[in-house]
Amino acid sequence: MSFEAQSCPSCGAPVRKYRNPFPTVDIIIELQDGIVLIERRNPPYGWALPGGFVDYGESLETAAVREAREETSLEISNLRLLGCYSDPRRDERMHTISTVYMADGHGQLQAADDADNAQIFRLEALPEKLCFDHASILEDYARLKRTRAND
Amino acid sequence: MSFEAQSCPSCGAPVRKYRNPFPTVDIIIELQDGIVLIERRNPPYGWALPGGFVDYGESLETAAVREAREETSLEISNLRLLGCYSDPRRDERMHTISTVYMADGHGQLQAADDADNAQIFRLEALPEKLCFDHASILEDYARLKRTRAND
Repeated sequence: MSFEAQSCPSCGAPVRKYRNPFPTVDIIIELQDGIVLIERRNPPYGWALPGGFVDYGESLETAAVREAREETSLEISNLRLLGCYSDPRRDERMHTISTVYMADGHGQLQAADDADNAQIFRLEALPEKLCFDHASILEDYARLKRTRAND
Repeated sequence: MSFEAQSCPSCGAPVRKYRNPFPTVDIIIELQDGIVLIERRNPPYGWALPGGFVDYGESLETAAVREAREETSLEISNLRLLGCYSDPRRDERMHTISTVYMADGHGQLQAADDADNAQIFRLEALPEKLCFDHASILEDYARLKRTRAND
C-alpha cells in the first residue's frame, strides 16, 4: 500500500493516509444515430466519454446513471460492461480505474455540469483527439460491435 | 463526493478528506481439478476467493497477479474479466469495488500471507459459507461456464 502526504490545516503537521486508486465510470451512450461524447469544461480539455468519479456508498451502476444524467441530461438503461481500464498513466492527474459501460440513451441530449458541449458521433467519424485513453476504449467498443455483427 | 473525518496526530484538529470506494480484485483461479479458495487469516473469517486491495500506481491485472501469488503461491495467466461487484454492502468493513478475473493457475498451491489455508474445490462442492458476496460471484461464474458449455 502507498501513502499520501497531507498537512493538518490547523497546525501544519504531516498527516499520513493510505492512498488508493480512484474508481471512476465512463459510459458509451448509444442513440439511434451514434454515441455521445462531451466536450470537457475542465482540464484536460477536449472530447471524452461522459463519466466521473464514483462516490463512496454508490454502486458503479448508480454512478454511471448519475454521471450520464448530470453531463448529458439523458437517462440510460440496459447497462452492459465493456471493460475496466486501470493503467496508472491513463489520467495524468491521478491514478484512476475506470469501469466502462455501454447503455441505451433516452431523452433530449443537452450538455450540463462538467460538460460544455455534448454531441452525437458515428464511430466512423469520431473527433481526432480524445482525452485520456478514450480512443483506445472506443477501439475496443468498435471491435466488439464488429464481432457481434459477424456472429 | 463524500468526506472522511480524520484527526491530526499532532494537534488533534479535524482533517477532512475526499473519500472514495476502495478498489479490490478477486481471482477465480482455474486448475485441472477445480478452482482455488482460501481460508482467511483475518476477519471476516471463512472461505473466500483469493484477492485484495489494489495499490496506488498498480493496474488491476498486476494486482490480480500479485494477490494470487501472495495468497496461493500460484502464478496466473490468461486473465479474463468476469465482472465488477460494487454494492456498498458487499463488505461490511468499508465500501469496496471488486473487479473479478478468471485465470489459469500454474505451480504448486500453497497458502501464504493473508491465507491460512488454500484448497481446490469443484463448483458442485463449494464450502457452504463464503465471505462477502463471493457465493454470488461464483454463481455468476457457474452460469457463464454453463452458457459457454452449451454454445
